[in-house]
This record gives sequence, C-alpha cells and structure tokens, in this order.
Amino acid sequence: MVRFKHLVIVRFKEGTVVEEIMKGLEKLVSEIDLVKSFSWGQDLESPEMLAQGFTHAISMTFDKKQDYTAFQTHPNHVEFSATFSAAIEKIVVLCFSSVQVKPAVA
Amino acid sequence: MVRFKHLVIVRFKEGTVVEEIMKGLEKLVSEIDLVKSFSWGQDLESPEMLAQGFTHAISMTFDKKQDYTAFQTHPNHVEFSATFSAAIEKIVVLCFSSVQVKPAVA
Repeated sequence: MVRFKHLVIVRFKEGTVVEEIMKGLEKLVSEIDLVKSFSWGQDLESPEMLAQGFTHAISMTFDKKQDYTAFQTHPNHVEFSATFSAAIEKIVVLCFSSVQVKPAVA
Repeated sequence: MVRFKHLVIVRFKEGTVVEEIMKGLEKLVSEIDLVKSFSWGQDLESPEMLAQGFTHAISMTFDKKQDYTAFQTHPNHVEFSATFSAAIEKIVVLCFSSVQVKPAVA
C-alpha cells in the first residue's frame, strides 16, 4: 500500500518549550481528518555523529498527495506554522510516496 | 502506544542503484522478525530548500529498544551495512520512542 508521507526532522532553538509545540501539533492534526496518522519522537539513542544535531522527528501520513496539499493550506495549519517556524533552528523536510514493506502497527 | 523507531534520512552517492539497495533492505527486514514495520520513500515533492539534498527516508519500528539493538548486531544486518554505508553521500539517523498520536494505517 502506497501512502503519502510528510516527514520533518528538526532541531529547535534553545529555550523552546517543545512540549507546547507538540501539544499544538497534536491538537492541529486531531482537528483535521486529512491527517491519517501522526507520530513524533525525540532522539535519545542515536550516536551524536549520526544525529547531526537534529533532535526531533515528526511523521504524518495522508491517503494521497492532494490531501497533503489541502492540509498545508488549511487555515489552522497556516496559523500553527507561524509558531512552529519561529522555534526552528534547523530542519529537513521530505515528502514522498511511502512504500510500506512490512505493515504499520497500531 | 509507544514504540521504538529507527529513522534514516539519506542522500546516496551519484551512480548508486537505489533499487538494489532497497531490495536488499527489504530482504533483510523480511528475514528478521524483530523489525515490526518498515517503509521507505524517495522525496519527490519537498521544496529543494527544505529537502537539503536528502533524497530518501527509511523508517523501521521495533517493539522495544532491545529489539533494535539486537537487529543492529544481527549478522545479516552487519553484512548489509557494508553495502549500505558504501553508497551513502550524507545521512542523518534518529532513534526514538515514538509517540503515536493518530494510529498507524496499514
């Protein structure tokens, strides 16, 4: 099954209250049905050399690219983006059709 | 539900036959039960500025950190790592306990 994934790797600015950012993100995706799955985590285990200063990963799944585009332009997302962007020190964003080789687990 | 995620963002060296690498990876995870889910994709949609030269994402899920550690030291993984490492131009690896806010979809 191929789905559209939106993957964000980020390092937040020093002093950012990451819990608040994530709470805002959780609220956002719970309000918008287009987001089919959402998970995030804070890197704690990767060797420093490999994490390269990135501290958090955020992953969202959509049924199709059009749903992602609609999410991007959703007023709630646009509003949240301002808060999120202000907290970023560095970021990588990848968007791709995901090839699911082993099924996802709940 | 919290699970342990292993996330890799990579840019392969020019001339790499990515299909072969991914086929090898698919074979690897299909042989090792510790890997509970596995998906990958090639970035096609992200603005160049945000993708920062990274082209592929690989995501694996484990029930717990110990399973990930066991996977890392599995002889098949060690063997595959040599091929994989030789093809890498740049990489970021994050390992984290994943907070699943919306459930994963099959």
